[in-house]
Amino acid sequence: MGKLLLLNGPNLNRLGKREPDIYGDETLKDVEEKAKQLAASYDWELEAKQSNHEGELIDWIHQADQGYNGIIFNPGAYTHTSIALRDAIASIAVPVLEVHISNIHQRESFRHQSMLAPVCSGQIVGFGTKGYQLAIISFVQT
Amino acid sequence: MGKLLLLNGPNLNRLGKREPDIYGDETLKDVEEKAKQLAASYDWELEAKQSNHEGELIDWIHQADQGYNGIIFNPGAYTHTSIALRDAIASIAVPVLEVHISNIHQRESFRHQSMLAPVCSGQIVGFGTKGYQLAIISFVQT
Amino acid sequence: MGKLLLLNGPNLNRLGKREPDIYGDETLKDVEEKAKQLAASYDWELEAKQSNHEGELIDWIHQADQGYNGIIFNPGAYTHTSIALRDAIASIAVPVLEVHISNIHQRESFRHQSMLAPVCSGQIVGFGTKGYQLAIISFVQT
Amino acid sequence: MGKLLLLNGPNLNRLGKREPDIYGDETLKDVEEKAKQLAASYDWELEAKQSNHEGELIDWIHQADQGYNGIIFNPGAYTHTSIALRDAIASIAVPVLEVHISNIHQRESFRHQSMLAPVCSGQIVGFGTKGYQLAIISFVQT
Amino acid sequence: MGKLLLLNGPNLNRLGKREPDIYGDETLKDVEEKAKQLAASYDWELEAKQSNHEGELIDWIHQADQGYNGIIFNPGAYTHTSIALRDAIASIAVPVLEVHISNIHQRESFRHQSMLAPVCSGQIVGFGTKGYQLAIISFVQT
Amino acid sequence: MGKLLLLNGPNLNRLGKREPDIYGDETLKDVEEKAKQLAASYDWELEAKQSNHEGELIDWIHQADQGYNGIIFNPGAYTHTSIALRDAIASIAVPVLEVHISNIHQRESFRHQSMLAPVCSGQIVGFGTKGYQLAIISFVQT
Amino acid sequence: MGKLLLLNGPNLNRLGKREPDIYGDETLKDVEEKAKQLAASYDWELEAKQSNHEGELIDWIHQADQGYNGIIFNPGAYTHTSIALRDAIASIAVPVLEVHISNIHQRESFRHQSMLAPVCSGQIVGFGTKGYQLAIISFVQT
Amino acid sequence: MGKLLLLNGPNLNRLGKREPDIYGDETLKDVEEKAKQLAASYDWELEAKQSNHEGELIDWIHQADQGYNGIIFNPGAYTHTSIALRDAIASIAVPVLEVHISNIHQRESFRHQSMLAPVCSGQIVGFGTKGYQLAIISFVQT
Amino acid sequence: MGKLLLLNGPNLNRLGKREPDIYGDETLKDVEEKAKQLAASYDWELEAKQSNHEGELIDWIHQADQGYNGIIFNPGAYTHTSIALRDAIASIAVPVLEVHISNIHQRESFRHQSMLAPVCSGQIVGFGTKGYQLAIISFVQT
Amino acid sequence: MGKLLLLNGPNLNRLGKREPDIYGDETLKDVEEKAKQLAASYDWELEAKQSNHEGELIDWIHQADQGYNGIIFNPGAYTHTSIALRDAIASIAVPVLEVHISNIHQRESFRHQSMLAPVCSGQIVGFGTKGYQLAIISFVQT
Amino acid sequence: MGKLLLLNGPNLNRLGKREPDIYGDETLKDVEEKAKQLAASYDWELEAKQSNHEGELIDWIHQADQGYNGIIFNPGAYTHTSIALRDAIASIAVPVLEVHISNIHQRESFRHQSMLAPVCSGQIVGFGTKGYQLAIISFVQT
Amino acid sequence: MGKLLLLNGPNLNRLGKREPDIYGDETLKDVEEKAKQLAASYDWELEAKQSNHEGELIDWIHQADQGYNGIIFNPGAYTHTSIALRDAIASIAVPVLEVHISNIHQRESFRHQSMLAPVCSGQIVGFGTKGYQLAIISFVQT
Repeated sequence: MGKLLLLNGPNLNRLGKREPDIYGDETLKDVEEKAKQLAASYDWELEAKQSNHEGELIDWIHQADQGYNGIIFNPGAYTHTSIALRDAIASIAVPVLEVHISNIHQRESFRHQSMLAPVCSGQIVGFGTKGYQLAIISFVQT
Repeated sequence: MGKLLLLNGPNLNRLGKREPDIYGDETLKDVEEKAKQLAASYDWELEAKQSNHEGELIDWIHQADQGYNGIIFNPGAYTHTSIALRDAIASIAVPVLEVHISNIHQRESFRHQSMLAPVCSGQIVGFGTKGYQLAIISFVQT
Repeated sequence: MGKLLLLNGPNLNRLGKREPDIYGDETLKDVEEKAKQLAASYDWELEAKQSNHEGELIDWIHQADQGYNGIIFNPGAYTHTSIALRDAIASIAVPVLEVHISNIHQRESFRHQSMLAPVCSGQIVGFGTKGYQLAIISFVQT
Repeated sequence: MGKLLLLNGPNLNRLGKREPDIYGDETLKDVEEKAKQLAASYDWELEAKQSNHEGELIDWIHQADQGYNGIIFNPGAYTHTSIALRDAIASIAVPVLEVHISNIHQRESFRHQSMLAPVCSGQIVGFGTKGYQLAIISFVQT
Repeated sequence: MGKLLLLNGPNLNRLGKREPDIYGDETLKDVEEKAKQLAASYDWELEAKQSNHEGELIDWIHQADQGYNGIIFNPGAYTHTSIALRDAIASIAVPVLEVHISNIHQRESFRHQSMLAPVCSGQIVGFGTKGYQLAIISFVQT
Repeated sequence: MGKLLLLNGPNLNRLGKREPDIYGDETLKDVEEKAKQLAASYDWELEAKQSNHEGELIDWIHQADQGYNGIIFNPGAYTHTSIALRDAIASIAVPVLEVHISNIHQRESFRHQSMLAPVCSGQIVGFGTKGYQLAIISFVQT
Repeated sequence: MGKLLLLNGPNLNRLGKREPDIYGDETLKDVEEKAKQLAASYDWELEAKQSNHEGELIDWIHQADQGYNGIIFNPGAYTHTSIALRDAIASIAVPVLEVHISNIHQRESFRHQSMLAPVCSGQIVGFGTKGYQLAIISFVQT
Repeated sequence: MGKLLLLNGPNLNRLGKREPDIYGDETLKDVEEKAKQLAASYDWELEAKQSNHEGELIDWIHQADQGYNGIIFNPGAYTHTSIALRDAIASIAVPVLEVHISNIHQRESFRHQSMLAPVCSGQIVGFGTKGYQLAIISFVQT
Repeated sequence: MGKLLLLNGPNLNRLGKREPDIYGDETLKDVEEKAKQLAASYDWELEAKQSNHEGELIDWIHQADQGYNGIIFNPGAYTHTSIALRDAIASIAVPVLEVHISNIHQRESFRHQSMLAPVCSGQIVGFGTKGYQLAIISFVQT
Repeated sequence: MGKLLLLNGPNLNRLGKREPDIYGDETLKDVEEKAKQLAASYDWELEAKQSNHEGELIDWIHQADQGYNGIIFNPGAYTHTSIALRDAIASIAVPVLEVHISNIHQRESFRHQSMLAPVCSGQIVGFGTKGYQLAIISFVQT
Repeated sequence: MGKLLLLNGPNLNRLGKREPDIYGDETLKDVEEKAKQLAASYDWELEAKQSNHEGELIDWIHQADQGYNGIIFNPGAYTHTSIALRDAIASIAVPVLEVHISNIHQRESFRHQSMLAPVCSGQIVGFGTKGYQLAIISFVQT
Repeated sequence: MGKLLLLNGPNLNRLGKREPDIYGDETLKDVEEKAKQLAASYDWELEAKQSNHEGELIDWIHQADQGYNGIIFNPGAYTHTSIALRDAIASIAVPVLEVHISNIHQRESFRHQSMLAPVCSGQIVGFGTKGYQLAIISFVQT
């Protein structure tokens, strides 16, 4: 009865093709498909997009301010550096959930801080691709 | 079919009595009750404990290495300072999920870093008391 | 008798739609229109562009090295992180003025430092959208 | 006509037995007795407690939210490290005064910062045990 | 129709006599004269003062809280160190504009931060002595 | 039977005229008058001075080395930056008490550290103008 | 007998047009032509691309995981800030050599650290455009 | 002919059950037994205690000021954070030796610094459980 | 045949009256007298001044740009904080020698750095009051 | 037709005997032999030296200012600490190339910074012993 | 039955002649003699060497890789700065024990960190010259 | 009537051959000759030595503890890094004066701090080679 945007940032198109010990072996397509099915099972719609371009992610966040009930966002490496994405999220009314597949706190120190967390509604870290599903559940189960 | 330990750290006994704009107005009892019901609805058992004593939390984590399938842990203020709790979690085989009610990344800078996150299986931040429920779901729904 | 480029960076397309207590309620279109009129009143031409893409802003700065007498640039969030934009400005002969609508020194500490200021001719901060007009005046009134 | 809690933290039970050049030679019992007499001279009641256990201090602060008009607290070494005590103080309505016997600013640099000062009503530093008396006077003399 | 105070801080009496590659060759008298003429052309009055004494600058800022519509202030070296001037500005209702002749962001790193910027209405940096004129225009042109 | 100097530093002449939520609404004259009365009630003399000039405060501290039994000093903003005042206090035998009206530990981080505290006999912070009275009492009640 | 990708990042299209004392006066076209000839002299193929867009560089690195034996990459200003490019390089099996024309260690301190070096096979710094040729030789001469 | 206290801090009750590659596979009971025998072979008495509670460790250190000739203390994780334990050690006359089983300098950087070392008589690091024996020998062999 | 200015900064009027273990027991008058005699023995004139006021020291440095061959300056505590004095020295052509009586490198860390050294011709540290004489000799003996 | 000095610093005499996963299994003799042959194939002479003594390396660099056309220098651990070697290189006219066998940017953070890079003509990092050959080629192929 | 190398670094030849409150009054010869006797009492051989030259210490460590069962090393001041000694130790198979006579954690902060500890088998600090004996015992008593 | 050691550290043998804008064009031999003559004119003896080897400088300082009245030491680059030289100076009774030819405070930031200054009797900086002469005068003129 609502509509979600599942947004994946840089290098997540490589999911399943890259460093399986960190990110698992599902492809992005697999993950997006599963996410759509879970949403559908609650009668919600879910649209999935991915880009390696910071500017394109900003454009899409602006556009999602109309017609969406929530955004599930894995910002990838931009998590740690992008003030521009932070401002984009702050500029819209739709709630954004930040999801990380790996436990970023176990990795290099520059991955420990998120520039986006302070403007997101919540953060789910380290659950593998199951994290996307918990985020969906948090929207659809009230 | 499994058993969970819901562990709350310092000052969480004040839940609902303190700073409602940050922590909401449910009491700890309410939260624990809801958690037990959710677990029960999946035929899991959930035991709930709270302590303001770092040493007691360490003792309980050690004990939970037997007879539990998972720990859901809100370490409160010890999140940011306790290497001893980190070592306790690292010393057991049972997976521990770290949950924070408030968005710690929006608060004072000394709350931005978790000493425990690197040894936990996952981290859920900023969902209010709904975070405990997402953690339970991540254990009981496979 | 000269020609100016008014360049706005990420999220400034949201002007007037976002956080009015920080940025005021004029839209970007309003601001650009006013700027063109002010320039025209001195018989100067002013062209206005906005992009959320760092790469596109770099491209435009390179192109403005021909046919323009000055650039008035609000780099938004890229102010604080973009060495690439700094290099782009350093690579052209046309003078660039940096303008910020809000008083960046009153906001989060990561907004206090500008990577671009050292290669700009001047910096105008905290005058609201009037800052663009002061920048234009500094070019057209000799 | 009111009631005060005089709370002393870790190692203050050693008062008078330890480093007399820093802390003087009165014992904790002497100090507590004098404090009770001063309060009594204004018809106030004063209860005195000491613990080396961070958790116990937290428990007592929670309990003092009922039936007390003020807390005079020398947090000892926990001053500089305990976010949990800070949260405990923030969770109650009763005002807390922070007292240090020695001039902590003359000692090791890790003693210069107080985690508790921002949530206390006032701070008295370096007056020796007379500092407790000034704190009492600040409550009983209006 | 209004009245402005043009305030210059330490060493600006040396203007034109010192490091012309950084500060140009106009004397302070020249600058003040030009400023008065510009203000007068809009029927505003402008009074100009300079001091090398931090305390005297504080005194003058306090006094300017009556009878002035705005202060244009080049705090010179005190920009980077004076909390006392910051407090003085914060204690008055009249808006203060901070002006720097040189581009402080191109110079030694201790000149990059302004203690005063957060309490000023705006900041103009790097326009040479033309910066004073832009500041005047921002007051007189509404 | 003794004589005290009550010394107030920069901007404290604005007391009661400025930021009442931080500093209250008593004027400096009110505070000084009350202080004299309290001292007089114990048969002590109290002289009160204020200056915005760091050098003048140093001069006065030097002079107070003769004929005074103690100094009560609110150094205002110079607290955090003035090594010269620190040296002045270190150069005299008369004890100096440092008083701050507001809780400096709740404000900007640059107000958390006192350059003077290590050479003062004691520090009273956050009691509003009552802090001056506690300081007087600490001198006159033995 | 192999194929190389010569990838140049932001502002390198300005080569020969910009700051010749730092970068020399060859244009990017000259450099690419020379590189192709050198590769050809060893019977290798070399393809050359340049972009100012971080996202586009990421896309190209992903694509080069098929059909190339090596990448020679001058990431320009993104060297120092782009975790996303680092992740892109880490996600492919083809070896990447990092080349810098100027001696980045002689320039501003923010140019001293490379985010990419840890995931590259080697780094060549400060040889002018000859650095590209050394990189080619390291691939083609075994 | 003398008496020693062997004190072990948080998580050392897990010895032999936890991370054997770091801590070896002897249990705490084994270690304590061996220590008692070694002391006995020199006609010394050794008492062994372990606690996960910082407060309890402080209490025991206070009590050991009577009737003991030395303390051998492995403070576990409290090594790096506990100013309260440091103060406890400083408050007694009995010498305290600090022992660490693992080489703390090879582990996470937050384990490299000891808050306790400056007040201990000596420090033995990285000898495995043999470190306890060296500490005993240093007391019993004069 | 030349003329020198001997300038002493804050608290140096206390010389001989204050902390004799650090500064010796000669008074400032003694030191100035000796300096004049030494200069006179070479047929040079020496004028001596002291102020606790930063602004006054700046004024005097400006004035000494005419009619003096050199300045010998002990800036006292302003050494470590005054950018304004640094700018004053940089604004004159007369060479300035910086002298410190005590070995500032043996004292608190905030005394280790001089803001003035980079603009002075030389620095003499730790020779007691003999340092002034070495400075004079460096001017008068060519 | 020219002459090169191949200089290896501390511990490089252990090459092939030490940590082969980092440094490979060629001995220093092998490497030097190969280098001489490569130089000879271009009719250049190459002399090879190694020392663990910082002072000896400095002496040799001074001596190489006569009779050599270039130095290829692997400074080993002195790379990160030796200002004296930096000054030695700066004091000669012969160009010096810095070579590191391993990718120092993948190792401990104290190996990431080179004190020597700013005074060297170029830097080759992470190519294994092939790096020496690239350095030779850069000298002999013009 | 084994052979040990006792290696002392810079300034330890001054033992007994220098700062006896820190290092005691035994000479190095005394210490070495005692060490040989202790080793001999277990039928082990011990050779003792001292040098002030970093390079010589490196040479000796390399040589000790043959014919020794262990090295007992007091690296003196090189402890805190020498990456070259660290690499030397890492390059040999013989275990190295680090010994410090004084409690380095009680001294200047630059003595708190050891560059060598991470590659040594163990560290003994603050036992005076008895530390060498404990190190010998740890080798000879199995 | 006394004897001085003039000690010069690394790269000072290059004096007059290297960077004349920083160090002037006198050779070390010139400087040493002049120094001997000045000392001789006061009937003092002066011996001059130079080494690039830290260990040799340490050896010489130890030896100078007998038969010398003072050491004049220009430690060159070791000034900023050598704790071993600091310990050597601290281990002798003869006073050591630290001299730097150039103004180290105007150069790279790593040259601003001296590890040796705290153990030297005085420091003379920035007087060119005349600094050696001032140091001699300070010894011979009492």
